[in-house]
Parts: sequence; structure tokens; C-alpha cells
Amino acid sequence: MRTPICDRLGIEFPIFAFSHCRDVVAAVSRAGGFGVLGALAFNAEELEVELSWIDDHVDGKPYGVDIVMPNAYMGKGEGLTREKISGLVPPEYRTFVDGVLAEYGVPPLPDEAEDGRDIKAAGLAVDLEGPGQVEVALKHPTRMLVNALGPPPKEVVDRAHEHGILVGALVGSPRHAVKQVEQGVDIIVAQGTEAGGHTGEIATMVLIPDVVDAVGPDVPVLAAGGIGSGRQMAAALALGAQGAWTGSIWLTVAEADTNPVVVDNLLRAGSRDTVRSRSMTGKPARLLRNAWTDAWERPDAPKTLPMPLQGVVWAEAARRFTRAGTPELNGFPVGQIVGRMNARRPAGEVVHGLVEEWIATTQRLSGLIED
Amino acid sequence: MRTPICDRLGIEFPIFAFSHCRDVVAAVSRAGGFGVLGALAFNAEELEVELSWIDDHVDGKPYGVDIVMPNAYMGKGEGLTREKISGLVPPEYRTFVDGVLAEYGVPPLPDEAEDGRDIKAAGLAVDLEGPGQVEVALKHPTRMLVNALGPPPKEVVDRAHEHGILVGALVGSPRHAVKQVEQGVDIIVAQGTEAGGHTGEIATMVLIPDVVDAVGPDVPVLAAGGIGSGRQMAAALALGAQGAWTGSIWLTVAEADTNPVVVDNLLRAGSRDTVRSRSMTGKPARLLRNAWTDAWERPDAPKTLPMPLQGVVWAEAARRFTRAGTPELNGFPVGQIVGRMNARRPAGEVVHGLVEEWIATTQRLSGLIED
Repeated sequence: MRTPICDRLGIEFPIFAFSHCRDVVAAVSRAGGFGVLGALAFNAEELEVELSWIDDHVDGKPYGVDIVMPNAYMGKGEGLTREKISGLVPPEYRTFVDGVLAEYGVPPLPDEAEDGRDIKAAGLAVDLEGPGQVEVALKHPTRMLVNALGPPPKEVVDRAHEHGILVGALVGSPRHAVKQVEQGVDIIVAQGTEAGGHTGEIATMVLIPDVVDAVGPDVPVLAAGGIGSGRQMAAALALGAQGAWTGSIWLTVAEADTNPVVVDNLLRAGSRDTVRSRSMTGKPARLLRNAWTDAWERPDAPKTLPMPLQGVVWAEAARRFTRAGTPELNGFPVGQIVGRMNARRPAGEVVHGLVEEWIATTQRLSGLIED
Repeated sequence: MRTPICDRLGIEFPIFAFSHCRDVVAAVSRAGGFGVLGALAFNAEELEVELSWIDDHVDGKPYGVDIVMPNAYMGKGEGLTREKISGLVPPEYRTFVDGVLAEYGVPPLPDEAEDGRDIKAAGLAVDLEGPGQVEVALKHPTRMLVNALGPPPKEVVDRAHEHGILVGALVGSPRHAVKQVEQGVDIIVAQGTEAGGHTGEIATMVLIPDVVDAVGPDVPVLAAGGIGSGRQMAAALALGAQGAWTGSIWLTVAEADTNPVVVDNLLRAGSRDTVRSRSMTGKPARLLRNAWTDAWERPDAPKTLPMPLQGVVWAEAARRFTRAGTPELNGFPVGQIVGRMNARRPAGEVVHGLVEEWIATTQRLSGLIED
């Protein structure tokens, strides 16, 4: 049960696991899949710590790093500090958010609260962090660099290739896939609307064959969005993908450092409990529906701000409701597959469960040929 | 390449084709699939004509009829006429629509215009037409009755079963699937958000395994939404469906009586050119994005009315813009698969194309087992 991408990356199963948690990345790679560390929350020094830890715990198995570094953003953040960006948020937004948090009894931060490292505004100064992160990743035995929100800078693609590292990119439309390939990207992750996080409107079922046909047979495509069982993995391969890119299902595995309040909310949620919302980052992202996403759909809510300003508004609020542990407000980016996330299991067990059902499904389909 | 549903219905391929056009229904059934006539636009006498025509042109092959007859609506329409319902539309809606049509130079109807039989408000007095349609369908060699928008009345299920006819139902969530089975429905058509027409929010990739697991192994599930190629059909079967329910792809086949202005718009559209909108019927339905759907999203637009009132507003406007042949306003219910509908081909050729690619895909997946 292998596809060509398995040989290119030296992995056993074409299961790609995106996670912000190094323990999950290492566990999936050790189990025969391919863990990809989401580096958005780390600066270069922090990323160095994370990747060194992974190197020590991955038993020499390959892994990747996901760095948000769209070319279109490069240079835009120069001279900007968090304080400067924060000053651009109109005051009525803070009034609105204070009102929402007050409804749920979330207190203001105490003066002595530390600056929360783990809660960063998505899209904030990615151009300042990205290049340093790339240099760190290149020093480690990373096998793939992945980028989202638009083609990466050409220099980064070239630097990766010089190091024998493949470059992947997330897209939500065939047109964007072609643009990525033109920029030198090696692997396309085509992400359907049912996926968690930033996502387009086209469903995985329609998107994958369209992207596969658009980029041609020489570019491997991974399917993302709605994959959390071996049947869905087999479906992804039927659609023409060489593998499955998964994210949501790792949020609730035993190794994940996801906030326990969030984990409880995820384990309870059904497939209808997500919403595509601009309320976290300013761009449409699928999130667990919660009091925060609901609040921004109320008639009295101001229009969400563009990235990165909405992310600043969210991050300021998130420091407060995370600290308070308010269940109603602790949502998270997650796909519709959340309905299948009902138990905490070790990551390796999840990998093997996917593979077993994938094999059984393929055998069932093969059986149709003889009839 | 058969599944158990093929034997139950006496068909060669598990490809179900929903169409309002009798020519398409007969052509698909003759080609080995299963044509299903959408009866919404016909009263009992008209349906008798359509089914007699199909009997004469289907070469004895099985076919089905789709009758919109949700139990929850039964009795609600008693004493209501089109005129009475029409009188319930607030005047500001007609003012708004007149303004939109004027922008595109659509003239008022001339006094001598006939009442348009082919443009009916969806959801209007379905309870008055439904029972008569059922009696007609039972007189013909129909093999399956299908219902949408909620479980059918129990009496209808029993009547169908007395005639040896299977009952199918469209659903968009596992919970609705279970309710349908409890009402005696035999076959579940699980329809993902990427489908055309009335549709829920869960994508096909996530919905099918959830529904299959919810109804258990004894209830066949057909997958709807995003299926227009053999790869997508193989994916549907991988997800656990026994067959593919398709609708959009038949709108542009050579036999279809679809308005040529609409056909041109569909052939040109890409997968991002649909929108889930209440502007046609009052319930969320995926439609080709056009000046009508855009108009109802404008800040000056009134909130769409509930079913069936919005359908009356739409039907009145549709008589005018259909007569005028205004390309900008002639949208249609269609799924995201519209991006793959790029040529007019005979229905039989479409069936055989689906089957060939389905077989090739299954063989490709089988090949993975040996590796």
C-alpha cells in the first residue's frame, strides 16, 4: 500500500499529519506517516528548540515543517511591531469584544500576566519570522517545507531545493495550484472547504480531480479536508491524490498539547458544529462554532477587520478567555471531520487505524472488479 | 462492477440520474443506469403523460420518480391557491425585484402571456400535488419513489411497498437519515453541500461515512454531491456508498430540454461559480451564481422570505427573465461539479464515460495492494 510520494520521502504510508505539537509530529513519523510541524507560533530560536527535540525523538524518520511565508506578504511587515499593529485596531472593536467577554464572565488580564507566547495573531509579521524559520529548518534533516496563503518566495524554493528538500503548498483552487507549480513548488496540498483553518469554497470531492488534472501527472497532489478514516483516505486516492493531508484529527490524540478545554469541546462536537468564519484571522477559516464565532455574526457586531488586524483582536481576547478557561469561547480551527473525533487515542494507533481501514476499503473496491 | 443495489433494482451500473427531463431519464436507464424523473413541475395529469412517454422509450429498463412530499408539509396547503399565496408577498419585495429586473432591461410580461407551466414556485402546495403524483407513479412500472425535504408520509411508504416499489429519500445529515429509516424509507441518498439544489452544510467526503455508519449495513446509501467523473464515483464507493446519485451533469447533455441560455451559462461556469442561497426557494439551495443571487446579497436587499413565499417571488421574476432570455439572470440549481460540465454529450456517452473511469480507478487502487 504505497504511492510514489512514499518513495520520494522515504515513508511507509502516505499519511501527512499537520500539527503544532512536536510530540504528535514525532509520533506520526515514527508510526510510518509523515509529521509536519506548524511553525507559525515559533520564532527562529523557538523553532530551533522544537526541531532539535523532534530530531531526538523521531528515530531517524523523515518529517516536515510548515512555515507561513507567502511571497505576497514579504516586506510588508518591515518596521511594524505588535504594538504598532495593535494601535491600528479601531477602539469600537475593543468595546465590542469587552462586551462579549463580559457576557461570559471573562475577567481582564491581571497586570502581572506574561506575554502569551502560545497565542500569536495569525498573519502578524509572517514576513519577519519566515526567513529565519527557513534557515533553522534547513539546518535540520527536514524533508519537506510547506507553505500556505499563496506561493512562497522563489529564493526559498531554490534554497530548499539546494538542500534536497521538497516544497509543498496548500491551495484551494486549480488556478492557485498552477501558480504554485510555476513558482517551483513540488507537492500540492489541495484543501477542500470541509478542512479546518483557512479554506476555500470548493469541496474535496470536486477539488482533487480538478487540481490533479490542472497540474498534470508529474506533480503529486495530497488531498486535505474531510479525511479521518481509511474510507476517506481511499476516497482521496480514488480522486487522484497520492496521499492524505490531515490536521484536525491530531488535535485530540493522546500526545497533543491542545488546551484541555478545547479538547473537551472538540470531542463533543458533531460534523455540523463548524463554521467558515473571518472572526479569528480576518480571512475565511473553518473553526469550531462557539460564542466567539457567533458573536461576530450578530447584527450589532462590527465587520471583521482584514488580516492581520482581526488576528490581533482575536489574540488579545484569546489570552483572556484561555486564561479564564471559558468553555463557550474556546473554539479552535477544525474541519468537519470533528464529528469523528470522539476519543483520545495515541497518534500511532490513529495512523494504524487509518491504514487498516484503507487496506480493507481497497480490498472491498477490488472485489467489485470480479463481479 | 456491481453493488447489491444493482440487483435490487435490476440495473447494470449504480448510477442514478435525477432529471426533470423525460428524455434524459429514459436515455440513462437505457444505457444501464437508473433515471429518476423529478416530478415537481408536473401535476398528476402532466405526470401521467411524462411517465407514459418514458414507458414507451425506456426499452423496459427500470426508472424512478422523485416526488417532493415531505410529511411535515402535508395538509398545510389546503385551501391555498397560487393567488392567495401570492397575496402574502409584502409589496417591498416586488419593488426590489422590479428594480433588479429593470437594471438588466427585463420588460414586464405582456398581458397576453400564458401562465408558465414550466416555472413553478418550489415548495408551493406540494401537499396538494404530491398524493395525486404518487397514484400516477404507482400505475406505471416505477421501481423507486424518491422524496426530499423531510420524511414522506407513512401511508405513501406503505402504498409504495404494497406495489413492490422501493422508497428513497435525500438527506444532508446522519440524524435525518435515521429519521427517514424510522419512517420506512429503504434507500438513503446522502447529499453533500457541494450538490446542486437544496443542500446542507456537510461535505460529501464527511457525510457519507457518517450516514453509512448511522443507518447500518442493511440500508443502502447513495452518495450525492460532487460526482461527475469515474474517479468521484469510485470515491463515493470507497466512502461506503452503494452508488452515485447525480443531477447537475444531466442538465447539459444533448437530450436535456434545459433552456439554452442556462446551458450556455452552465458550460462556461467553473467550480467556484456556485453559491448556497435562499434566493430561489427560501431554503438554502446551491445555485449557479448570477445577478439574481448577487442581488439578494446586496445591502439594500430585503431578507429572503420563507418557503413558499420566496419561491413565488422567484417564479414571478423567472417568468420575465426567462421570456427575455437575459443571460445575467438565468441561473439554475447546480452543484460545484459544474466546473466539469464543459461540453454537450449524449447521456449514454456520459454514463459509459463514468463507468470506464470508475473501472480504471478501481484497477489503479487495486494495484496498490500488490506494492
